[in-house]
Amino acid sequence: MKHLLSTKGMTREDAIMLLDVAEDMSDVGDREVKKLPALRGITVVNLFYEDSTRTRISFEAAEKRLSADVINFGAKGSSVSKGESLKDTAQTLKAIGADAVVIRHPSSGAPQLLAERDWIDAPILNAGDGMHEHPTQALLDAFTLRRRVHGRAAARGKGLDGCHIVIVGDILHSRVARSNVWLLTTLGAEVTLVGPPTLVPVRTESWPATITSDLDAALATHPTAVMLLRIQAERMHDAFFPNTREYAKNWGLGETRFRGLPEATMVMHPGPMNRGLEISSIAADSPQSTVLEQVANGVAVRMAALYVLCSGERDGSGS
Amino acid sequence: MKHLLSTKGMTREDAIMLLDVAEDMSDVGDREVKKLPALRGITVVNLFYEDSTRTRISFEAAEKRLSADVINFGAKGSSVSKGESLKDTAQTLKAIGADAVVIRHPSSGAPQLLAERDWIDAPILNAGDGMHEHPTQALLDAFTLRRRVHGRAAARGKGLDGCHIVIVGDILHSRVARSNVWLLTTLGAEVTLVGPPTLVPVRTESWPATITSDLDAALATHPTAVMLLRIQAERMHDAFFPNTREYAKNWGLGETRFRGLPEATMVMHPGPMNRGLEISSIAADSPQSTVLEQVANGVAVRMAALYVLCSGERDGSGS
Amino acid sequence: MKHLLSTKGMTREDAIMLLDVAEDMSDVGDREVKKLPALRGITVVNLFYEDSTRTRISFEAAEKRLSADVINFGAKGSSVSKGESLKDTAQTLKAIGADAVVIRHPSSGAPQLLAERDWIDAPILNAGDGMHEHPTQALLDAFTLRRRVHGRAAARGKGLDGCHIVIVGDILHSRVARSNVWLLTTLGAEVTLVGPPTLVPVRTESWPATITSDLDAALATHPTAVMLLRIQAERMHDAFFPNTREYAKNWGLGETRFRGLPEATMVMHPGPMNRGLEISSIAADSPQSTVLEQVANGVAVRMAALYVLCSGERDGSGS
Repeated sequence: MKHLLSTKGMTREDAIMLLDVAEDMSDVGDREVKKLPALRGITVVNLFYEDSTRTRISFEAAEKRLSADVINFGAKGSSVSKGESLKDTAQTLKAIGADAVVIRHPSSGAPQLLAERDWIDAPILNAGDGMHEHPTQALLDAFTLRRRVHGRAAARGKGLDGCHIVIVGDILHSRVARSNVWLLTTLGAEVTLVGPPTLVPVRTESWPATITSDLDAALATHPTAVMLLRIQAERMHDAFFPNTREYAKNWGLGETRFRGLPEATMVMHPGPMNRGLEISSIAADSPQSTVLEQVANGVAVRMAALYVLCSGERDGSGS
Repeated sequence: MKHLLSTKGMTREDAIMLLDVAEDMSDVGDREVKKLPALRGITVVNLFYEDSTRTRISFEAAEKRLSADVINFGAKGSSVSKGESLKDTAQTLKAIGADAVVIRHPSSGAPQLLAERDWIDAPILNAGDGMHEHPTQALLDAFTLRRRVHGRAAARGKGLDGCHIVIVGDILHSRVARSNVWLLTTLGAEVTLVGPPTLVPVRTESWPATITSDLDAALATHPTAVMLLRIQAERMHDAFFPNTREYAKNWGLGETRFRGLPEATMVMHPGPMNRGLEISSIAADSPQSTVLEQVANGVAVRMAALYVLCSGERDGSGS
Repeated sequence: MKHLLSTKGMTREDAIMLLDVAEDMSDVGDREVKKLPALRGITVVNLFYEDSTRTRISFEAAEKRLSADVINFGAKGSSVSKGESLKDTAQTLKAIGADAVVIRHPSSGAPQLLAERDWIDAPILNAGDGMHEHPTQALLDAFTLRRRVHGRAAARGKGLDGCHIVIVGDILHSRVARSNVWLLTTLGAEVTLVGPPTLVPVRTESWPATITSDLDAALATHPTAVMLLRIQAERMHDAFFPNTREYAKNWGLGETRFRGLPEATMVMHPGPMNRGLEISSIAADSPQSTVLEQVANGVAVRMAALYVLCSGERDGSGS
């Protein structure tokens, strides 16, 4: 693995390897000194063209726990945008000595562009690009599922065979849904996508998932987990978007719907949550909720990705 | 001590212990390598809901001098505010592995909320909450006073018995005044609060301090120190606020008033100063001024608080 | 050397010493662990009164590669400006324990003011002040030129004797041009300044450079390098500024003009580039272009400056 751009096309072997390394990284958090010297002398640049405090501090925590030097580059603004500018920014980061670049970008495909061109030869980690992918989010979701299903001691080496995950929300615009569909099915799970008819992809043949707008029917199958996507505030003013009352009623995990779930069904959410809209507090704060495990596992998964990509890089160039 | 939320209710023993540890931390600044490995592997999050460059960089310097990993989280903006959101932010920080949280918040009581709920079990350090408290500011003020009164070599173990501190300004809205009243009196000092009649608390019985609007009468008692509070620009347009000329004349430490002070009376200010308003340059830059000592001592005091709280935390969970 | 404020007045010996140390620092980038412990325990504050992502992250990379503790202080805003405020900010940084200050300021002379007053005794590094100087930019330009002319192995100890550099752009307002004129001539090079007649200094007698508005005539002399300055967007609306089409035609390094250059002539630009305005992509991306070498060398030169200034400081105060 040279980059982490998407989960589409990732092999089952690579996915399980990353999750297994993340298990090792998670163990570091139990030590007296929660730090590894693995990336000492390595400079990681967090190149964020969109604000995202949660993803940025999760990566930053992961980088610092690996002893990397961290440079935050908030690229929002007028002088850096896309196209030629991305090229010049990438070449500048290379020249400055960036050994890895974590990029968040509003344009789908920007991380791929960085990886494919010869502007910079450092590993590129996609921290979310437009409506395309958010692979570390899918990895942390898979990690969380795998751990709950198999138990921490027995998780290593396992996939998600036989699991069934229901993902609910604005599927059409969600990079989290996209990355999860590919990764979860690669790991052997079955995925059902649920959302308002106007917000699910029409051409469904290419997605390895069942698509429906009937949440209650999907939940009646007793899935392993139901994952609620965050509703973006800016979408709610869209003509194709149902109003919030209608959304909460039909696609939110309200109290009644939550109480109807089997006790074994996990409740997942990538955060930050709109409590009362796509998820009720009773669901979010229940023992079935994995919301905080997802956040904690995010650091371990990002440590794993950085470790695997940067160690490879060092071997490749060093000897 | 598990948290540092306020000076109200802090015991004299705890206060003196913190000041004594701060003396040790201050000594670190004299070494060849001005760093301690004490908090290696500890992640400290600076969660600032209000801008405050001075307080933030003072904490950041303290954290780095203790070898902590520092994550700055500027939470100003729309997506994070208070109530439920503070809960979700706190739980996220816990999940990410924050070992201590330094919080600055416009709402009085926000740090207490963080500490009392079970959202996060890390030590919480209040870096200023609304009009409530700013305990590290009071500790650095007490540290500065103690050192000048007893001398650096003899300060350890001592209080401020017999001292008399006059605090001048917009007492009603000042968290610095509040924290100082409690801490200085706990350490044995007598406190007089001086301000425009509209800007001192009406119900004075609960404050262990004398309250007056006559600065010259207060200074005529030859206090140990006069502490000028910063006038907030946004207050000056308030109907209850005197105009700036009137303020400077009656409650500012102008040249004439300064020259009338005994030479032994210290001149204190938490910074940043409005020179010409609450303090004249001749006072601010005089040998009696402790303004810069206060800043320097701020780093030592914050190192002490972090060290005491985080070491305790480690002991508690580690063995 | 106590500060790095300007290249005007810098001796040839000091300039060559800095470039030689930068060669050593550049070698660190080839190591397995690209880090030196040289500035462990040293706190460097990046005090930026103007946004400049590139310069800031170059300094930050240099500081971290030397193991310094870095505090970024973005001073843009209302509460910190100039005059008295700069004094109070400087004294605060001193009190907080800043061992070196990298300052970027819109006012010409601000770094000198910091260095000359006794507000702070730490080394001051000028990262660009108004229209005055940008000495680390000139040093990295000189470093890049020296390395290309003499070769990496043979560069140490050398100057730029016999070289001829043509600098093109808005000379009148350019701190990059100013710093380069002084440094390059001190190192033995000849400098020609080219720009629109309204944008070159009228009183030329004090500048050790030939001044002209005829770019093609200057290039006909087969210079060692042509350095294109960045055109500031805000200048383009100035009455004295030619329109962009006219500028590109007369003073831009377009394709035709670039193809007319001798192959040995280097093409330099401090970045970020306005491709199609002052430089064409064919020139910017050619083997003659040193644009990315300049960025890479910027980190080495800034490491050198920090190392020389902070080591001196330690020796001076430590023993």
